Amino acid sequence: MNNFSFHNPTKIVFGEGQISAIADLIPANARILITYGGGSIKKNGVYDQVIKALEGKTFFEFSGIEPNPHYETCEKAIALIKEKNIDFLLAVGGGSVVDATKLIAAGVNFKGETPDAEPWDILAKGAPVTSALPIGCILTLPATGTESNGNSVITKAATHEKLAFGSPLVYPVFSILDPTTTYSLPTRQISNGVVDAFVHIMEQYLTYPVDAKVQDRFAEGLLLTLIEEGPKVLAQPNDYAIRANVMWAATMALNGLIGVGVPQDWATHMIGHELTAMHGLDHAQTLAIVLPSLMNQQREQKRGKLIQYGKRVWNLTNSNEDELIDAAIAATKNFFEQMGVPTTFKGYGLDSSSIPALVDNLVRHNPNPLGEKADITAEVTKKILLAAA
Amino acid sequence: MNNFSFHNPTKIVFGEGQISAIADLIPANARILITYGGGSIKKNGVYDQVIKALEGKTFFEFSGIEPNPHYETCEKAIALIKEKNIDFLLAVGGGSVVDATKLIAAGVNFKGETPDAEPWDILAKGAPVTSALPIGCILTLPATGTESNGNSVITKAATHEKLAFGSPLVYPVFSILDPTTTYSLPTRQISNGVVDAFVHIMEQYLTYPVDAKVQDRFAEGLLLTLIEEGPKVLAQPNDYAIRANVMWAATMALNGLIGVGVPQDWATHMIGHELTAMHGLDHAQTLAIVLPSLMNQQREQKRGKLIQYGKRVWNLTNSNEDELIDAAIAATKNFFEQMGVPTTFKGYGLDSSSIPALVDNLVRHNPNPLGEKADITAEVTKKILLAAA
Repeated sequence: MNNFSFHNPTKIVFGEGQISAIADLIPANARILITYGGGSIKKNGVYDQVIKALEGKTFFEFSGIEPNPHYETCEKAIALIKEKNIDFLLAVGGGSVVDATKLIAAGVNFKGETPDAEPWDILAKGAPVTSALPIGCILTLPATGTESNGNSVITKAATHEKLAFGSPLVYPVFSILDPTTTYSLPTRQISNGVVDAFVHIMEQYLTYPVDAKVQDRFAEGLLLTLIEEGPKVLAQPNDYAIRANVMWAATMALNGLIGVGVPQDWATHMIGHELTAMHGLDHAQTLAIVLPSLMNQQREQKRGKLIQYGKRVWNLTNSNEDELIDAAIAATKNFFEQMGVPTTFKGYGLDSSSIPALVDNLVRHNPNPLGEKADITAEVTKKILLAAA
Repeated sequence: MNNFSFHNPTKIVFGEGQISAIADLIPANARILITYGGGSIKKNGVYDQVIKALEGKTFFEFSGIEPNPHYETCEKAIALIKEKNIDFLLAVGGGSVVDATKLIAAGVNFKGETPDAEPWDILAKGAPVTSALPIGCILTLPATGTESNGNSVITKAATHEKLAFGSPLVYPVFSILDPTTTYSLPTRQISNGVVDAFVHIMEQYLTYPVDAKVQDRFAEGLLLTLIEEGPKVLAQPNDYAIRANVMWAATMALNGLIGVGVPQDWATHMIGHELTAMHGLDHAQTLAIVLPSLMNQQREQKRGKLIQYGKRVWNLTNSNEDELIDAAIAATKNFFEQMGVPTTFKGYGLDSSSIPALVDNLVRHNPNPLGEKADITAEVTKKILLAAA
């Protein structure tokens, strides 16, 4: 096990009816800004629950945060915060709303070192986050884990740049996870969420062994949970227990815990981002294309963990190691397909013609080779993508 | 899954050499009190590392915290803190040192509601903890989980009362977990620590199913880790990776995570406390006596989970359910014995003659029946103890 630090200060309040808890979780004299997206929370009753819980408190609203949230949208929210002297942010929605709210929180008092500094520098120049407004979160889409970590991904619409930042200052103070808020999600978002969480786990698990037994067992436990519950949530969409298990698994998948003291990969995510940027595929769709092919391409580097994964997660017993690995990869592909998320370019009506340009973009955005051993070069990436065409 | 809140604010800093991190983790102008026990930290080099890391800071020392720490000892520390205007506590040691430091932290500014109020009221009368000094922890004995929770058990020597309290205010701000600090532990403490952690997990796992898949998988993962690493830590006491896995598993066993949203038992602990009080057995020794017998006695109430435990943790495949449960209980007993911790009264040179008095004491301290279904009455406890004689 490698040395590590772990600190996750987010308070989780989990279960049906818990939205009312915000009445006690937000300071009485706070001036609150509710941030949300396109208005689905007004259709599914979440908005009404929030407003009721905030009775007697001072609050304002900022709506219109889009999927793959825009920096320009965050700027508008920051202006409103300054105008209204807001001192508490309440993000109500999925990963995009929470991610945007993190940049808004960090951007309000951002100064930077030059006169023309702007909050975008946090993403583009790695400018340090030195303060942030406190954030509360009411999560309505289990997928990204942002409800309990310090990470955020923001897109600058003007330049089409999609960049990430992280800071211990933007962990939500609390996150409400009420599985019933996810009942009204479209099937596609549920499927994407399960695949997204699955791949988050794999990026932290499927590297090389460092004898970190707790982390391995926890990662395998989360994978097993998603494999068991994923197809069930599609078949029985109004089953509370299934929704609850998927929601809690998605949070645990990326709250830092399973990644402590172990190598991490994240090449699938980096390659996937280029597919989203060029073809507009959903984030999870790109992960479903890239991961199985990457597993196959990196089978020697990941050999030990691939075998462990096949045995413990898929109960495979093949005596031939390569056959076991093949079966583990096939099972992974099959799981994604079963979730309704195709695993090839063809599955989305695409062919291989864009691959050279995809690789060029990847190298431009990530000059160094990717992966836990930094050996996923442009050439290797090309092979991964061609095999997934 | 039941509704829950989870909030664990302790920062974990894990690995060899991490003691030096306290230089940055403790505020520069803090007036620090180092609390420790009988001086083993002076023999194994931990004390020297701490002093070196605190160079340039203002610190005082309070030693002599005993196993099953005394309230009277805490009172002395509180007096010293007031005299020296201490504002930060650094607990260096095992569970006893950390538990005592928690009461010290909560006791310094304790007022209570009557003129004769004293910090003991926090334990004896459930007086609320309204403030506490910040605590840093350097753990040298993996077992109790106190390094990352808000619980503490203290004994009043004058009256032989051993009571517990808990408060969110006494979670350590940080805990340093350096597995090399555990190399010098006596075998008995290592064995006890593994058994203690194992039973902590079982108290939160072996109840009845509530379809909490993540919590179950995590609990099983921790049990599997202890089963794999426990015997190895005895055979290869200077193996870093094994020590690291045991240490991290023990912390995760009782930091709240696996217990969220699930029923909990804790009857084994309650009954075990009486065995310690009457016969002076180590805490873990009492758990090793009580748990397997309780599993057998409660096999109907715990049937579903016993079968799951047998299959997933011990890979049992018996088609007859009761045979499977028998085998799971036998495997548990065998594991404790393999760790060098006997599982019967006889194993400690005791007979069944004290059982009536033990049950009387238990009922006096716990007027209501124990267990996740509150059905472990005096009569049931008697059967459990007789079967373990």
